[in-house]
Amino acid sequence: MISQRLIFAFRSSTRCWRHPIAFVEARKRGGWRCFSTPVCSRGSPVMEEILARVVAPLPTYETRDKAPPPPESNSLEFMHFYKSLDMEDKLSLLTKLSQDFGVDHKSVSELAVKLLDTQIRDLATILQAEDRLRYSLIPRYRQLLSHISRVEGGVKFLVDLRTDLLEIISSKASDSPQIRDLNSTLKSLLSEWFSVGLLKLERITWQSPCDILQKISQYEAVHPVRNWTDLKRRVGPYRRCYAFTHAAMPGEPLVVLHVALTEEISNNIQGIVREFSTLDAEEDVNKINAAVFYSISSTQAGLQGVELGNYLIKRVVRELQSEFPHMCQFSSLSPIPGFTSWLQGLLNQCRKEGRGLELLSEQEWREVEQATDCAPGMAAMDALRKLIGTGEWMRSERLSLLLEPVLMRLCAWYLYGEKRRGYALNPVANFHLQNGATMWRLNWHADTSPRGMANSCGIMVNYRYFLSETSHNSALYLQNKVITASEQVLSLVSQFQKNSKL
Amino acid sequence: MISQRLIFAFRSSTRCWRHPIAFVEARKRGGWRCFSTPVCSRGSPVMEEILARVVAPLPTYETRDKAPPPPESNSLEFMHFYKSLDMEDKLSLLTKLSQDFGVDHKSVSELAVKLLDTQIRDLATILQAEDRLRYSLIPRYRQLLSHISRVEGGVKFLVDLRTDLLEIISSKASDSPQIRDLNSTLKSLLSEWFSVGLLKLERITWQSPCDILQKISQYEAVHPVRNWTDLKRRVGPYRRCYAFTHAAMPGEPLVVLHVALTEEISNNIQGIVREFSTLDAEEDVNKINAAVFYSISSTQAGLQGVELGNYLIKRVVRELQSEFPHMCQFSSLSPIPGFTSWLQGLLNQCRKEGRGLELLSEQEWREVEQATDCAPGMAAMDALRKLIGTGEWMRSERLSLLLEPVLMRLCAWYLYGEKRRGYALNPVANFHLQNGATMWRLNWHADTSPRGMANSCGIMVNYRYFLSETSHNSALYLQNKVITASEQVLSLVSQFQKNSKL
Amino acid sequence: MISQRLIFAFRSSTRCWRHPIAFVEARKRGGWRCFSTPVCSRGSPVMEEILARVVAPLPTYETRDKAPPPPESNSLEFMHFYKSLDMEDKLSLLTKLSQDFGVDHKSVSELAVKLLDTQIRDLATILQAEDRLRYSLIPRYRQLLSHISRVEGGVKFLVDLRTDLLEIISSKASDSPQIRDLNSTLKSLLSEWFSVGLLKLERITWQSPCDILQKISQYEAVHPVRNWTDLKRRVGPYRRCYAFTHAAMPGEPLVVLHVALTEEISNNIQGIVREFSTLDAEEDVNKINAAVFYSISSTQAGLQGVELGNYLIKRVVRELQSEFPHMCQFSSLSPIPGFTSWLQGLLNQCRKEGRGLELLSEQEWREVEQATDCAPGMAAMDALRKLIGTGEWMRSERLSLLLEPVLMRLCAWYLYGEKRRGYALNPVANFHLQNGATMWRLNWHADTSPRGMANSCGIMVNYRYFLSETSHNSALYLQNKVITASEQVLSLVSQFQKNSKL
Amino acid sequence: MISQRLIFAFRSSTRCWRHPIAFVEARKRGGWRCFSTPVCSRGSPVMEEILARVVAPLPTYETRDKAPPPPESNSLEFMHFYKSLDMEDKLSLLTKLSQDFGVDHKSVSELAVKLLDTQIRDLATILQAEDRLRYSLIPRYRQLLSHISRVEGGVKFLVDLRTDLLEIISSKASDSPQIRDLNSTLKSLLSEWFSVGLLKLERITWQSPCDILQKISQYEAVHPVRNWTDLKRRVGPYRRCYAFTHAAMPGEPLVVLHVALTEEISNNIQGIVREFSTLDAEEDVNKINAAVFYSISSTQAGLQGVELGNYLIKRVVRELQSEFPHMCQFSSLSPIPGFTSWLQGLLNQCRKEGRGLELLSEQEWREVEQATDCAPGMAAMDALRKLIGTGEWMRSERLSLLLEPVLMRLCAWYLYGEKRRGYALNPVANFHLQNGATMWRLNWHADTSPRGMANSCGIMVNYRYFLSETSHNSALYLQNKVITASEQVLSLVSQFQKNSKL
Repeated sequence: MISQRLIFAFRSSTRCWRHPIAFVEARKRGGWRCFSTPVCSRGSPVMEEILARVVAPLPTYETRDKAPPPPESNSLEFMHFYKSLDMEDKLSLLTKLSQDFGVDHKSVSELAVKLLDTQIRDLATILQAEDRLRYSLIPRYRQLLSHISRVEGGVKFLVDLRTDLLEIISSKASDSPQIRDLNSTLKSLLSEWFSVGLLKLERITWQSPCDILQKISQYEAVHPVRNWTDLKRRVGPYRRCYAFTHAAMPGEPLVVLHVALTEEISNNIQGIVREFSTLDAEEDVNKINAAVFYSISSTQAGLQGVELGNYLIKRVVRELQSEFPHMCQFSSLSPIPGFTSWLQGLLNQCRKEGRGLELLSEQEWREVEQATDCAPGMAAMDALRKLIGTGEWMRSERLSLLLEPVLMRLCAWYLYGEKRRGYALNPVANFHLQNGATMWRLNWHADTSPRGMANSCGIMVNYRYFLSETSHNSALYLQNKVITASEQVLSLVSQFQKNSKL
Repeated sequence: MISQRLIFAFRSSTRCWRHPIAFVEARKRGGWRCFSTPVCSRGSPVMEEILARVVAPLPTYETRDKAPPPPESNSLEFMHFYKSLDMEDKLSLLTKLSQDFGVDHKSVSELAVKLLDTQIRDLATILQAEDRLRYSLIPRYRQLLSHISRVEGGVKFLVDLRTDLLEIISSKASDSPQIRDLNSTLKSLLSEWFSVGLLKLERITWQSPCDILQKISQYEAVHPVRNWTDLKRRVGPYRRCYAFTHAAMPGEPLVVLHVALTEEISNNIQGIVREFSTLDAEEDVNKINAAVFYSISSTQAGLQGVELGNYLIKRVVRELQSEFPHMCQFSSLSPIPGFTSWLQGLLNQCRKEGRGLELLSEQEWREVEQATDCAPGMAAMDALRKLIGTGEWMRSERLSLLLEPVLMRLCAWYLYGEKRRGYALNPVANFHLQNGATMWRLNWHADTSPRGMANSCGIMVNYRYFLSETSHNSALYLQNKVITASEQVLSLVSQFQKNSKL
Repeated sequence: MISQRLIFAFRSSTRCWRHPIAFVEARKRGGWRCFSTPVCSRGSPVMEEILARVVAPLPTYETRDKAPPPPESNSLEFMHFYKSLDMEDKLSLLTKLSQDFGVDHKSVSELAVKLLDTQIRDLATILQAEDRLRYSLIPRYRQLLSHISRVEGGVKFLVDLRTDLLEIISSKASDSPQIRDLNSTLKSLLSEWFSVGLLKLERITWQSPCDILQKISQYEAVHPVRNWTDLKRRVGPYRRCYAFTHAAMPGEPLVVLHVALTEEISNNIQGIVREFSTLDAEEDVNKINAAVFYSISSTQAGLQGVELGNYLIKRVVRELQSEFPHMCQFSSLSPIPGFTSWLQGLLNQCRKEGRGLELLSEQEWREVEQATDCAPGMAAMDALRKLIGTGEWMRSERLSLLLEPVLMRLCAWYLYGEKRRGYALNPVANFHLQNGATMWRLNWHADTSPRGMANSCGIMVNYRYFLSETSHNSALYLQNKVITASEQVLSLVSQFQKNSKL
Repeated sequence: MISQRLIFAFRSSTRCWRHPIAFVEARKRGGWRCFSTPVCSRGSPVMEEILARVVAPLPTYETRDKAPPPPESNSLEFMHFYKSLDMEDKLSLLTKLSQDFGVDHKSVSELAVKLLDTQIRDLATILQAEDRLRYSLIPRYRQLLSHISRVEGGVKFLVDLRTDLLEIISSKASDSPQIRDLNSTLKSLLSEWFSVGLLKLERITWQSPCDILQKISQYEAVHPVRNWTDLKRRVGPYRRCYAFTHAAMPGEPLVVLHVALTEEISNNIQGIVREFSTLDAEEDVNKINAAVFYSISSTQAGLQGVELGNYLIKRVVRELQSEFPHMCQFSSLSPIPGFTSWLQGLLNQCRKEGRGLELLSEQEWREVEQATDCAPGMAAMDALRKLIGTGEWMRSERLSLLLEPVLMRLCAWYLYGEKRRGYALNPVANFHLQNGATMWRLNWHADTSPRGMANSCGIMVNYRYFLSETSHNSALYLQNKVITASEQVLSLVSQFQKNSKL
């Protein structure tokens, strides 16, 4: 969950409708092309003819178990045709598919009427009527999707097709409700095919095929891999890298989890991905007390909403416990994407509304003024915005000391208090809280890379997994929207609240 | 040859309700037990309590993507509990599960009413209403099944659970329509999980793990493997053995196909499974013109109705074509289970009704009388029945010559003319005809083993796969119930019809 | 070492020269044929011509590093030709090879003279002279052997060729000293190629390829495997089976060790290979305190004298210690082949020489007379011989009780006291004592199979490996011919000595 | 191209005695250290004590098969001790080992005397005497080496130890004849262990372990791999990469061969390692007519003199022929290291001796003068030397055209005519000619990289393998020192000869 969003951030340049600039770039690279091509104009008769041929009609309810599977060539033709289209034509095709080969609404209505008529009759008749109704609610294109999954490369094709659907929906290229239905039908099929019993946990090491390691490197969205030495370290001593793979997509890691084995729960990412210099060290088991999940990435945008990361963490915990029976500290070290921009927005708003005191105390404002040598009020606010925007304060010890309590309590609030439909606004927080983790510790100066400064003023957070409590926490969060947090976090939150009089 | 049915015949001793004797046997062996045990009496509060706990309520439509998966322990508890039950209690449990945790009929009705109300509104509203209705038609236990599939051993558990369900239904131990619904829900889930894209084709050789080869040997239902030398031959030169396996059931072949590579399409099974003595021969590719599928067995009764054998034949044909590009003859050499007993039934009936001339011509009856030295009429009929029952005619050349045309035309009729709901009565015929094969050649003296004599008077049949015609034939058969047959078969059928004045 | 001899016992029917009867049998089976064949008569010009072609002359000392390897076809031609020969012609060929393509004695002499001339000169000159002499002592055929090892299947060919050489030597088919030299040259090459660093330890399980398991079954010379269930048990729970394999002979186990994991050191073989009925049990690690090596077999007669078994035991001990860190009892449970026939020989001799009292005490003889109802003296001796020959005494409790102390002390003497060139006469004892084991315990009624009765009156022995003492024991035995034995064994030996006044 | 020499060139900075500067560098990097360390002073008693302990005395001739192997700990102790030493102490240790634990010269003499005494006796006695003499010529340390090979990592240790020995010898750090003997004993042992039957051919692809690919990248000495994309291309479509590995050194490629699959034999290396841009192309088998070996590297300096590269080329040819049955063009595209420096040397000499006309014709000299705008005679010679030294002529079309015939005929002579002990001076030429290749084509502008210009003025050469002639060519070259060359080469050579009046 963390993953998809991050991946999306990472890949946003491929989304053509939403970001016109990225789009132009993408076009140049031969990606999404948004103008019609000579190959196939929208709604061309070719398209209709192909769909009519390859999307077999649903068998009648009576013969549903007797129907022969359509020839494989149907699926292959559809796949080949679809791949040859540019994005505009893909949209046409999917729209047509979802509109003309969906559910037969008339038949559904009739069966609904019949069902209501049967209510006085016996149970067997009711069950029959329900089953017929259920069958009539299957869109005709579902069969096509099912058959595509059976040919070689079919599952991967459908994952990529769903990537397109999600792109279409999120970019608002189409707001057709049928497209939405197609997306949700495909999602539910993918959920079955990628059910966890069918996934294989693989540990990735320096002995793994280069092909896999290259993908691991490319997919790493959280802390980008800089070079092969960097990569080697991430699969070397005191590190573990696990991935789920799937029989139908061999050699393709679906979700990847990077773990650092440490003496205590890390409060700093550079110590994990940079300064560590024991490439050839032998692991000393006595120095391994904690497992720190410092990166989790989904690799397939098309599997959005298909729960994998959650299961991967659980499986890895089990794996680590069997390797290190004494280990009992499990925690993430997570980025906080969005904090800086949320904060900038907040500053803007307070500036407009003159509510600066909700953010910093009078004393703090005074110190900002002195440190930046500016006038009080608006000017101080602007100075602060600029500091945060540039990350310049990092270089001044005075500013650092001044800003630490401010940014920490604001960040705690951002993570704990800011919501979307009742759940944590921050996607990474939402992911770990759903999994039942505790919001455990905010870490100052935890990611001083430019990226870390830009995202979250260098702050990172540990979501800790207390194994005996995760399933309780998860239910609490999902059902009651309650966030479990440590004293450190709660205390920071209450400092924020006191100040802002919330 | 086709799988599930034969496997059932093979395993019939484990069905306790239908066959009282087999049942007693089974009980002794610790199999199904039909009396209540102290562990758990039917409808016990324990059972209800467990179900209430492990079968989580369906999330509301709105929160359906937000619901946390229930703890794995729920699934494990259910599996453990179910396995501890005897058959009677299993039936109770499944009945309760299907009745109390199925669809909420009231809610379905309400949503059906709402759907009908929306008919005047816009499409988006209709789609919404349909989706809600669709969601309400998901039985609550479906979620449990889904979650079980995710734990280790879960998929195998569900396959075995479906074996129980099929047993319950076919033995008429229960005629509850909910049990039927449970069965069909489970079948549709299994169909997704065992979709062909997720299956792996494995060639089995003498280098394969002993564990697999032992299973191949045990599962071989068509021509039982006598010993390890026999088995070695079946994976040795001029033979191929393929199986589908599935990631969620490692080391477990799901459906197994045995192929002989021959100079021409075999007309005799002993030549394939017995007399062949080239265990250490090198294959001479110039002597390989035909691939004869002489045995196909499904190993998992619980996958009945989940199409696998069909796909396996297709995959194997592709595999063989890539190994032997010049090969173009593909055919089964299939048993005809049920022919002898059908014939005995027919003789009985004709005897009762005095219609002997419909079976044999006057001339033929006379020869029977002479050969068996008996009186005409009833006596001759009895003599014939006895001959067929004992297979004694085999030893007399005279009788053999006399009976060959008679039995061949009767058998052709049995295969071609005898129907069940319009499709071939004989299950093996039905399997290959569904796949698009042609009923190609009846072979006299093709299986002279006691089993072959008892099943089909030693006759076997080739279903031939003309690759360019299978998909046309399959559609013709499944949709129009038309059987494609060779001239030999049609000529035998017409001889039968002429004689019997049909 | 135990192994080769046992294997030899096992295969003795293939030795044609020594055992005329076995020879005739072998001939029938197409084995060694001892008459000339039309293909190639002894000393035929064909043979000479081929040898002259394929056995390249040794390069001069100066060009020894410059010589191109001969074409591979030379090696292949020799291999092909050799395999086509019958035994008589093989003998001719090997004789010719060893005589005509060995060392150039004249050149050796000359270089020896030169070396002696140099003794007054500087060290570099001496080393040069020695190196030239060393080079001249390499037989010309050594190069052929070396080149054969490089072609596919070459190493296996040489192992089999050495089997022939050993056969020739042990059957006295030839007493040519050159053949002996050829054998020792080949042995030293094989020792390098089969040096332990190049061997791979494989654990054999029911998941191993059938091909391997079949070989394991065939090679088991100590306690023959009766069927596949028996075999499955030997690789199942509470059992381990290990083998060394070699890169140049893939799929071919070279030496196989069977281990039983037990609560205490076993005193009975039937408990290990027969009565054990926990095929599907889960191993309970708390019940595993001892590892009992109950069978070790070399599979390649041609590797006689190439130390493998010794290393295999050491590797397996290390393997087991890492799997069961608490395990500290390691012992064989070994057969005593030759005891019964040694005893019969002794009885014969004593009978001739009237020295019965050296074997049994007066009291014991009396009891024998009573029990067998025979006259004293010769008659009693004959009765005893008959009893031992038939194993009939087993069925009488009285005789059993009477014979136990007698046979046990005789057997202890046989193992401990009977020597050949100062080392234990019994080959199994010699093998384990060389490895540094202690002769630990004689076990009465330990192998009551017909084979066990015939070999050793049902007695078996444990050679125990006290890990901290093996290397000391080994040196003591090999250098000083001292056998380390337990008190039980020493006490039995001293009973024997007291009685026989030795 | 050929391996060991190039590798040596490549690694020369690690040789400390010969190149003082490299040595200092090496010291900094913790490599060879040439000053005594406190750990162990030369000839320290510690060293003697250890050697006395771990190098067991040779058993007597009589007990040679009875001797127990020394405990493994001896080997481990020696390995550990050796690795802890700096280079100076290593030299001391090896010197001591080779001097004090070599052959017992006195005993050799005595046996030589005995052998000469026996000359009148029978053959068996002579063979005995020879065998004793042969045994006495085995240095005592040979046993230690043999035992080291048996422990884990032992073979690799010995390969590295031989690297040290070769370093010592080539750097003249020692000129002890015993060190030379030790080296040759070790070489002959390594030759047995690395005999080709024990090597495994592996094809390296992008699916191979990263660990292997990283090594392949590091070991590539001929055309250095620039980055991972470069590496991916070298194992991608239209490329093959093969390596020999050995069971005792898992994961360690010993000799690596890079092959390009092309339409015709390449005359240019950049087209292979740079400009090729079909990373994701599908191979079109119709475009593959030739296999061009463009790089072969030995990775283990310690295996110098152990023939591997030769065998690898032969195996790969066989492999390619089975993949592409129609392929019949096999050729190297090889660098010509040393040509430029040979040419500079020649120019120097001619300048000194005023023999310029032997190199260029009068006409050519004139053109040089004009093109470089210099005076005739010395000045022109200097100008030419400068041109060649800087490679500047490349940028001028006029100079290029002028120099092409000159450099091509000089280069042809360098390759064909310059000898060392009668064999080609150029090591790459010598390698391929030994293998039986034909010196087929010199290619102008074939390697325009700085390295290619510096080595050989951009010229490369194809050594072509005509499979039916290699074994004849090889023998011709090795025995008669005859180089097989194409007309192009011979014609260039004769142009050179005509000019230089040779």
